[in-house]
Amino acid sequence: MTGVKKAGVLGATGSVGQRFILLLSKHPEFEIHALGASSRSAGKKYKDAANWKQTELLPLNEEEIIVQECKPEGRFLECDIVFSGLDADVAGDIEKSFVDAGLAVVSNAKNYRREKDVPLVVPIVNPEHIDVVENKVKNAKEKGEKKPGFIICISNCSTAGLVAPLKPLVEKFGPIDALTATTLQAISGAGFSPGVSGMDILDNIVPYISGEEDKLEWETKKILGGVNQDGTEFVPISDDDMKVSAQCNRVPVIDGHTECISLRFANRPAPSVEEVKQCLREYQCEASKLGCHSAPKQTIHLLEQPDRPQPRLDRERDNGYAVSVGRVREDPLLDFKMVVLSHNTIIGAAGAGILIAEILKAKNII
Amino acid sequence: MTGVKKAGVLGATGSVGQRFILLLSKHPEFEIHALGASSRSAGKKYKDAANWKQTELLPLNEEEIIVQECKPEGRFLECDIVFSGLDADVAGDIEKSFVDAGLAVVSNAKNYRREKDVPLVVPIVNPEHIDVVENKVKNAKEKGEKKPGFIICISNCSTAGLVAPLKPLVEKFGPIDALTATTLQAISGAGFSPGVSGMDILDNIVPYISGEEDKLEWETKKILGGVNQDGTEFVPISDDDMKVSAQCNRVPVIDGHTECISLRFANRPAPSVEEVKQCLREYQCEASKLGCHSAPKQTIHLLEQPDRPQPRLDRERDNGYAVSVGRVREDPLLDFKMVVLSHNTIIGAAGAGILIAEILKAKNII
Amino acid sequence: MTGVKKAGVLGATGSVGQRFILLLSKHPEFEIHALGASSRSAGKKYKDAANWKQTELLPLNEEEIIVQECKPEGRFLECDIVFSGLDADVAGDIEKSFVDAGLAVVSNAKNYRREKDVPLVVPIVNPEHIDVVENKVKNAKEKGEKKPGFIICISNCSTAGLVAPLKPLVEKFGPIDALTATTLQAISGAGFSPGVSGMDILDNIVPYISGEEDKLEWETKKILGGVNQDGTEFVPISDDDMKVSAQCNRVPVIDGHTECISLRFANRPAPSVEEVKQCLREYQCEASKLGCHSAPKQTIHLLEQPDRPQPRLDRERDNGYAVSVGRVREDPLLDFKMVVLSHNTIIGAAGAGILIAEILKAKNII
Amino acid sequence: MTGVKKAGVLGATGSVGQRFILLLSKHPEFEIHALGASSRSAGKKYKDAANWKQTELLPLNEEEIIVQECKPEGRFLECDIVFSGLDADVAGDIEKSFVDAGLAVVSNAKNYRREKDVPLVVPIVNPEHIDVVENKVKNAKEKGEKKPGFIICISNCSTAGLVAPLKPLVEKFGPIDALTATTLQAISGAGFSPGVSGMDILDNIVPYISGEEDKLEWETKKILGGVNQDGTEFVPISDDDMKVSAQCNRVPVIDGHTECISLRFANRPAPSVEEVKQCLREYQCEASKLGCHSAPKQTIHLLEQPDRPQPRLDRERDNGYAVSVGRVREDPLLDFKMVVLSHNTIIGAAGAGILIAEILKAKNII
Repeated sequence: MTGVKKAGVLGATGSVGQRFILLLSKHPEFEIHALGASSRSAGKKYKDAANWKQTELLPLNEEEIIVQECKPEGRFLECDIVFSGLDADVAGDIEKSFVDAGLAVVSNAKNYRREKDVPLVVPIVNPEHIDVVENKVKNAKEKGEKKPGFIICISNCSTAGLVAPLKPLVEKFGPIDALTATTLQAISGAGFSPGVSGMDILDNIVPYISGEEDKLEWETKKILGGVNQDGTEFVPISDDDMKVSAQCNRVPVIDGHTECISLRFANRPAPSVEEVKQCLREYQCEASKLGCHSAPKQTIHLLEQPDRPQPRLDRERDNGYAVSVGRVREDPLLDFKMVVLSHNTIIGAAGAGILIAEILKAKNII
Repeated sequence: MTGVKKAGVLGATGSVGQRFILLLSKHPEFEIHALGASSRSAGKKYKDAANWKQTELLPLNEEEIIVQECKPEGRFLECDIVFSGLDADVAGDIEKSFVDAGLAVVSNAKNYRREKDVPLVVPIVNPEHIDVVENKVKNAKEKGEKKPGFIICISNCSTAGLVAPLKPLVEKFGPIDALTATTLQAISGAGFSPGVSGMDILDNIVPYISGEEDKLEWETKKILGGVNQDGTEFVPISDDDMKVSAQCNRVPVIDGHTECISLRFANRPAPSVEEVKQCLREYQCEASKLGCHSAPKQTIHLLEQPDRPQPRLDRERDNGYAVSVGRVREDPLLDFKMVVLSHNTIIGAAGAGILIAEILKAKNII
Repeated sequence: MTGVKKAGVLGATGSVGQRFILLLSKHPEFEIHALGASSRSAGKKYKDAANWKQTELLPLNEEEIIVQECKPEGRFLECDIVFSGLDADVAGDIEKSFVDAGLAVVSNAKNYRREKDVPLVVPIVNPEHIDVVENKVKNAKEKGEKKPGFIICISNCSTAGLVAPLKPLVEKFGPIDALTATTLQAISGAGFSPGVSGMDILDNIVPYISGEEDKLEWETKKILGGVNQDGTEFVPISDDDMKVSAQCNRVPVIDGHTECISLRFANRPAPSVEEVKQCLREYQCEASKLGCHSAPKQTIHLLEQPDRPQPRLDRERDNGYAVSVGRVREDPLLDFKMVVLSHNTIIGAAGAGILIAEILKAKNII
Repeated sequence: MTGVKKAGVLGATGSVGQRFILLLSKHPEFEIHALGASSRSAGKKYKDAANWKQTELLPLNEEEIIVQECKPEGRFLECDIVFSGLDADVAGDIEKSFVDAGLAVVSNAKNYRREKDVPLVVPIVNPEHIDVVENKVKNAKEKGEKKPGFIICISNCSTAGLVAPLKPLVEKFGPIDALTATTLQAISGAGFSPGVSGMDILDNIVPYISGEEDKLEWETKKILGGVNQDGTEFVPISDDDMKVSAQCNRVPVIDGHTECISLRFANRPAPSVEEVKQCLREYQCEASKLGCHSAPKQTIHLLEQPDRPQPRLDRERDNGYAVSVGRVREDPLLDFKMVVLSHNTIIGAAGAGILIAEILKAKNII
């Protein structure tokens, strides 16, 4: 784990791209080396290309960087890691071209999440899925081949919060065979140009987010799922083994997704409420054990107050890399219900990308 | 159904009381005859006693009424019907004294909802539960006894929306044996002095409402349940026959409770999505058939747009007496999921009380 | 004042257009005869062309109307009055073509507001400015010429509220020579596609609305100004005679512009606070005297409670056609300060257009 | 400037008290030594006495401190500095008893702000007013008397933001003789038990804050005013020399007061817009020159974007100790208008208290 790594950002002017830049600008292990945006922005200084909308000022160094097009050329080719905040409609081709050029890409776009050989990673949950990439890199090295490019996908924002408490529970108490999640999602997840309209979200909630329920139901099964014997492909949990039902809502909250979940274990008897709580309290994620810079000190904050977690009060725990869980109690229908809160732009998007990159660095994959 | 009935309001200065007054002031079949509040307000003109916080002006006639104490005396004794917006901590004794004095009370308080012989009524759902009271009144008449006082309870606000679509579904497709409901509840349900604090609800949600989940789970079973053979006591559905699991949240919305529900029918095979929708569309509540003034023209508004119902746009359907249902779809875990929206201060509180009184009048019980 | 008039709506799918349609659909004196939108919408049923976002349902009759292009042809030529909710970037040419075709146009767009012979009208304030058009129509009639087309402009939304209390004050106490107005404007004024972004307005205010301060400062001088001797051109108050300074803010409110204003009369001594209040209370607008359907019963609601007017509680006075004024008090710098509240989509936009048309009808101009 | 100073907090469980504790817990120069609250809380651990509502967790050390009553006894007597977050109804007597006991008190309450010999201090604006206390302490020392107790008052939250840009302007361009300020104030200024009700502030603004306009108008004249020849009493600017007119509004924003101000200089000709901007940019507050830990690096952030400052985006500049100014432009009525944003709980309340204490320490007064 030596040296500072060169980082590139694709989609640098968008809301996810801005978050990547903000996090990288303060990061001891990465330096921003290349920023990519549309041809309209290329050639401009970043401060002139971006409509900076973060609550912290754009760092002075980053202001002056000249934006390039999103092509695997120029300074991008010198990057150890490339973060993609691209929109799905352009991410597919661009990210592929970067991987083909031998680059390591961590993407927030949904395009490759369902590919059999692409890890879909919530870094405080399933960093072991990165092994599939690690093996690929090692194999190439052993064969004396050029280091291959690869892509690792960040999960959907609402999936990240959901799977955080599920992971330790499954590890300790065995499979979950039924799961419901009703989400109350913050608007920052939809970006800001235009994102969610004020007329849609003041004194209102919108009980629908396009594609979200399907992502939540599907991604959970891949993230909690396994890998084939070769260690080359992911094997999601089957629909029969785990029934997942999601209902997704947009609510008037800036940051922080709240999820009301209930779950049933396959094994009988189910654990007690206290055992479930203890399991959540004790969970320490792998990134934390690896000593990663951004890893949360306490992966899951288990709250005992009856009215917590709340997004405004609890979303910043461990700089947004921890997940808060409260109201763990028995469920008349399944086994347990609880409320999960996660910071959608940190552990649910750009922040997850940074922590994935820290894991890659800790494991010498980049 | 002749003549205008004299109405009293208990707890007239509070938020529910204000709503009763507003609705009564525009009502062709009732006139406000007595207003009751705490001893601090008694003797004052209503306009001086109340901090009027409705979006419509306090009607001029009502402004001048002199508030009395909440005792079954004076003008209250001349009332055909008394609406109670009292807080639970005082409602018990006061409402009892009114019933003992032979008055007809419709109460929004929770105190008597679980009494075996007290109807818990959502007027667009189970007006037949009023029969228990009707029988009591008839029996006394037949025996030549004095007309007895009685109390009818309005359901909890979130229960009202939930049971509206359930009723026609159960009537048509048989019992529901599993039900989950995650609510996103408006702040007007908590009143305004102080109600929900702005610091708790701006850029935030609170995943907890004291006692609410229990009410939602329990009241549903009474409202959808039956009556014993004598027609004197209510027999709620048993916990074994119907498992209900609720998760209740407070959200930054002024009026309108949104509920994400899923349900399973006991009978197999379950109906199709289209059959469920058709059943909801066709439902006409009894109050509507009776021609009650406030009864909704369309009891359930079935919405086909993917992102509806929304509280700000849909809560005023049929003046808040109708319920909107959208996103009816299959559920991977139970049979169906859907989103239900109801106006919490109309069909979920004061408005329900008015419609109950209209039914009482239509049936010559008052 | 006989018969129902045929109305057309330009820009029918936009937010102002939707408001025109909603108000017209319930209006006893107008019927919707033609709806115009972009070529993308032309030929479709209105319900398929518009993303209806009003809090009341789209009336069934209007749903089925076939949208046409915004050209002075077809059913538009049969209209007695055409309401324009067009965006400024297309309003100029289209509205001109309608006027040239002999049609009567009432426009919410800003394009012709500053034309010397175009009335800029707040219907509860300066309906006498319509005389310029009336004269034009009469002259043509006398000369035996074809009835000419004309355009009347609705004022900017924040101007409407501001000038309402100024008009009676100027009539009674003489010219105002200094005026400041700091506005807190609702987001509905910016439309909804996309309008104000949720990220810009949740837990935030935006202290800037493009072009708004200039409009507020300039339009006030035209509306409170006079007409030349011929009765053909408007003569705004000069910058020397009346200094106006505006500061405009967007706030997280759905409907209702609040304005904190202060003003100084040119004449000494200035009236007393009580005289100012009495003047505002007594003001009855011309439209009200004419018996116009939508005219407010009480033009200005003078509120004495210290914390009123408030947008959520007071914006619906007289269906949004009245203006509320509160906190009238002496100002240490100028003479008086006060708070003015007006409903920006009613008296500040579509509603004003409807009331202007009612005045045109009452005066037999249409 | 040696050693860590012992700090006490009065009103420790309230919202201002919680802020003091949070800021002190992370402060290198102070340690929390005593916490005072009502008799109801006395004797309890702080974590049990307080309903902690900050966005950061209560630090572990502070959780365990035993709360005492607000009396000048026990650990309070060992404090180098006592911060008061008491409510005005109890602050008067308690704070006096602490001063009488020889303690140094920095208070957020309004009770002593208008006392002739009590400094009213915005630490980035008029730290020189502390000299009056410094002289008092020195005199006592020279006379060999016991070190006297004293009180320094923190200004009202909306005053703090207002005077920040005025100070450098007055220093450079001479007196301001006319000033208007319309405020859009965040709800955190009203605390949280209950503070501003959600029903009052969702989809609403309240154009009134009790006593606020008077404070804003009066405090400005004391803070920008001088000291008598003895250096013992403050001499506010007279009402004739400076006319100040304030209009105060509560808006749906969590933190950050926005103020739309306009001002006129007494001296002619007035400076240019560019000179005003340059003056604001160049201002460096005394606390910053003294090297105080919390002093802002850049006292005033002058923003050139047309739509800034905005509370959500700009309130955290220099940890809330800096003030942001934007939209500096000419005013048709006075000389200039501009928008000022300040963090009401930092530079407008608890944070100001901490920075005042840092100045006291830097000057060896404590």
